[in-house]
Amino acid sequence: MTEKTLQDLFIHELSDIYNAEKQLTRALPKLARAADDPDLAKAFTHHLEETQGQVARIDQIVEALDVRLKRIKCAAMEGLIEEGQDVIDEIKKGPVLDAALIGAAQKVEHYEIASYGTLCTFADQLGHAEAVKRLKETLAEEKGADEKLNTLALRRTNQKAANQAAAS
Amino acid sequence: MTEKTLQDLFIHELSDIYNAEKQLTRALPKLARAADDPDLAKAFTHHLEETQGQVARIDQIVEALDVRLKRIKCAAMEGLIEEGQDVIDEIKKGPVLDAALIGAAQKVEHYEIASYGTLCTFADQLGHAEAVKRLKETLAEEKGADEKLNTLALRRTNQKAANQAAAS
Repeated sequence: MTEKTLQDLFIHELSDIYNAEKQLTRALPKLARAADDPDLAKAFTHHLEETQGQVARIDQIVEALDVRLKRIKCAAMEGLIEEGQDVIDEIKKGPVLDAALIGAAQKVEHYEIASYGTLCTFADQLGHAEAVKRLKETLAEEKGADEKLNTLALRRTNQKAANQAAAS
Repeated sequence: MTEKTLQDLFIHELSDIYNAEKQLTRALPKLARAADDPDLAKAFTHHLEETQGQVARIDQIVEALDVRLKRIKCAAMEGLIEEGQDVIDEIKKGPVLDAALIGAAQKVEHYEIASYGTLCTFADQLGHAEAVKRLKETLAEEKGADEKLNTLALRRTNQKAANQAAAS
């Protein structure tokens, strides 16, 4: 049992989300291809661009603080992406798959919202003001992505899926 | 590739979160024992009671809709709980561990927020009005638990941990 500091936790969490974002940049194009609703596909493609920017932001934080990230694999993100892959493998393209993709993507977004929320708090307590600013930008983007998925779920995808179920 | 309906997705997601909640009822007492801050320990104990009520609510939904849950293991919750166990094993009791426990617990809460949010949307589209009501009650509790952890993180735990880091 080691004598860990808040700075150690901060670096660990930053390393975890860095790996998570990298995994996500590989998964989002698959989600975009699997989506039937063109607005949903566009939302995934747009979030891929945001995610690439978020990776760059972490690079900037690491450089400014002159720290080194640990090479870790984010097991949680791995599991969440696997869940997304499972629904793509199991459900044929259409409104029901879209509803499942939105659900899977919102779990990913909420993982990131929790992680960046914690990182903001840690960075703030540690006095890393510049890092707080960048992390808050990313946190706002993640919340925005979740909101967009909410809107798509409510307005289109699930309504279509319910109609399909009622007609079958 | 099977012809899945929104109802199938609803039952799958409900089965997943049912297993996740059961796992959580076993994990929360460990988190409560590991916490140094008595308010944090109390928050975990209080959320254990809520979680037991949430399991009962799912039982009521299942009974009212006359459906059968699938026996599945929620891999995501398993991973998130493992992360919590890792920090308990790696960090000695005190403010830094408390900060790590809050971070781990907020990831759990956000997984549940995403899941119940999706379930509310599905249930609403499927016309399961009574289920929507119960699921919304749980969703509000999960958001409340996350907010409480936020407050504890901001006011006490992380400040203490930063002081400890500065003094070391």
